Amino acid sequence: MSELRRDPVVGYWTIISTERSRRPIEFHLSQPPAESECPFCEGREAETTPEVFAIRKKNAPDAKGWDVRVILSKMPVLSKSKVPDSYGQGLYDLMEGVGCHEVIIECPEHKHDLDELPSEQIERVVKTYIARINEMEKDPLFNYALLFKNHGLIFGSANDIVRHSRSQLIATPITPKRVKEELIAARNYYERHDRCVFCDMLRQEMKEGARVVAQNEHFYAFCPFAARHPFEVWILPKKHNADFGKTALEDIPDFALILKECLGRIRGLLNDPPFNFVLHTAPFRHKKKPGYWKTIDEDYHWYIQIMPRLTHDAGFEWGTGIYINPTPPEDASVLLREAEWKG
Amino acid sequence: MSELRRDPVVGYWTIISTERSRRPIEFHLSQPPAESECPFCEGREAETTPEVFAIRKKNAPDAKGWDVRVILSKMPVLSKSKVPDSYGQGLYDLMEGVGCHEVIIECPEHKHDLDELPSEQIERVVKTYIARINEMEKDPLFNYALLFKNHGLIFGSANDIVRHSRSQLIATPITPKRVKEELIAARNYYERHDRCVFCDMLRQEMKEGARVVAQNEHFYAFCPFAARHPFEVWILPKKHNADFGKTALEDIPDFALILKECLGRIRGLLNDPPFNFVLHTAPFRHKKKPGYWKTIDEDYHWYIQIMPRLTHDAGFEWGTGIYINPTPPEDASVLLREAEWKG
Repeated sequence: MSELRRDPVVGYWTIISTERSRRPIEFHLSQPPAESECPFCEGREAETTPEVFAIRKKNAPDAKGWDVRVILSKMPVLSKSKVPDSYGQGLYDLMEGVGCHEVIIECPEHKHDLDELPSEQIERVVKTYIARINEMEKDPLFNYALLFKNHGLIFGSANDIVRHSRSQLIATPITPKRVKEELIAARNYYERHDRCVFCDMLRQEMKEGARVVAQNEHFYAFCPFAARHPFEVWILPKKHNADFGKTALEDIPDFALILKECLGRIRGLLNDPPFNFVLHTAPFRHKKKPGYWKTIDEDYHWYIQIMPRLTHDAGFEWGTGIYINPTPPEDASVLLREAEWKG
Repeated sequence: MSELRRDPVVGYWTIISTERSRRPIEFHLSQPPAESECPFCEGREAETTPEVFAIRKKNAPDAKGWDVRVILSKMPVLSKSKVPDSYGQGLYDLMEGVGCHEVIIECPEHKHDLDELPSEQIERVVKTYIARINEMEKDPLFNYALLFKNHGLIFGSANDIVRHSRSQLIATPITPKRVKEELIAARNYYERHDRCVFCDMLRQEMKEGARVVAQNEHFYAFCPFAARHPFEVWILPKKHNADFGKTALEDIPDFALILKECLGRIRGLLNDPPFNFVLHTAPFRHKKKPGYWKTIDEDYHWYIQIMPRLTHDAGFEWGTGIYINPTPPEDASVLLREAEWKG
């Protein structure tokens, strides 16, 4: 059972994950399991937790015949769905670690790179993302679900080094601090300007063109002006939309294509670097609290943030929150555009 | 020349460091220079920038005979001292990268571990920290100076893998977001309770004793309740003091001892892990803005945060700001207390 603990000064929450509890010796990296032992490959369904969702051509759940498969994490960061017990301990606040942690297996074959899948398969992956986020929204205990992908070797747990393309979705009982900060900032901008800050950013980026990486009819990808990571790329829908879960079906092929292109260019240029991507989207809006994010459909705008991990946050970044990026985004975008990419 | 750029949504600042500008190929780690090539060793003073401060037994600056030596960074994150030019570019804000970046070389011999130095030498290091911070405060352009130490191999720049014990001090023209958040939170707590939140935390920690790592007459070290990193340790002065730069001379030996012990126990238990430490202290308070942090001497409390880097922030941490810590601080403190330590 994991526990959410609140720092008494600034108020950030930490998950103390006893499911993953580790003694010093266990922090050393184990070897990645061989391909023949990968539990995410088709035909080894019995070795994972039961599937909670799949796009399948044939057969019943937990058998062969799927294209995309979603399971519960074996080492969930958060789990269980009941009203969390929450209490104080002197100065400190605690909450039971209620939530949900799913793994989205993006292909039946043992492939490592999402961008190497055919675009029709990436479309299925995107449809799965949408379906699972919309499903989690139904649970009144959850306020947010973060979709993210950790790719590559730097992340330090044996589970992370299974080289089979997948993403993760974690629902939380609170709206996380970083999410809230962005939502509030976007609302403040909207109140002042009567325009979405992301739409304004898109307009300026498309006009200047200095930081573009790729674009198509419905999406635009660029290196953000104040990128905290070298070669960071954001993908935004050109048409205003706060909620990734409400992406129109006809926009999905374009999104799959631009995601494939951006990840492919990053992999080609930077020699398959470790990266994370994170979806920024509107929080769940349950009927029981209609007022809280009332204007969010106007003032927020979803996007995918792709962060190659070539540098590491060290003391300065930790102490100040200011990141040092040694590659100006204007240079990064030229290099990414000019990188070889087969498409 | 580096540039500070402000994200138009949340408002975080990034340093685009053209001094450190890197093309893709340069992100691969170079080999650490051999000991015989270490520019920080005594006798190689001519290979660094001129010293700006030293504690020396003999000789003029930039010659042998020093115990602690401070130089300007060869690859400064921020540099120059003049009123920074700051302007807008459509939606975006920019500021020239004004500031100062010093390297504090902690011993003349080629030693890697601060905790292995004799405690009298660590006292000299601490006195140097205090002297440099107080010196930087005199420059009216600087609002803050962050003292930090990056130790070990994960930080990805050739410069970082010189294995010679040192810390860094970077002065910034702004009060960084993370610093401000903590200062404001501490002030809010004080307004509500008429007590310092850190003093209250110390009182509870000392009473419970469940997370203590080490203590002596003037200092207390413990694993914080909501630790974001496994085996994270905070060292606080027992007597209320907001400003590290105002540490009493007679308290320095106790601080040197507890720092030595905490770093030594972490190194012993975790097999010399990479770590960062960061000093949290009051920002500079220039006469020209007396009102801004008026009550800070009452409501803030300095501390050192030591973070072994055994896990890495990945997509979830980045997207939510919620860290996952697999080792409860109550377990970490027992392991650290019981670790072999020669003292």
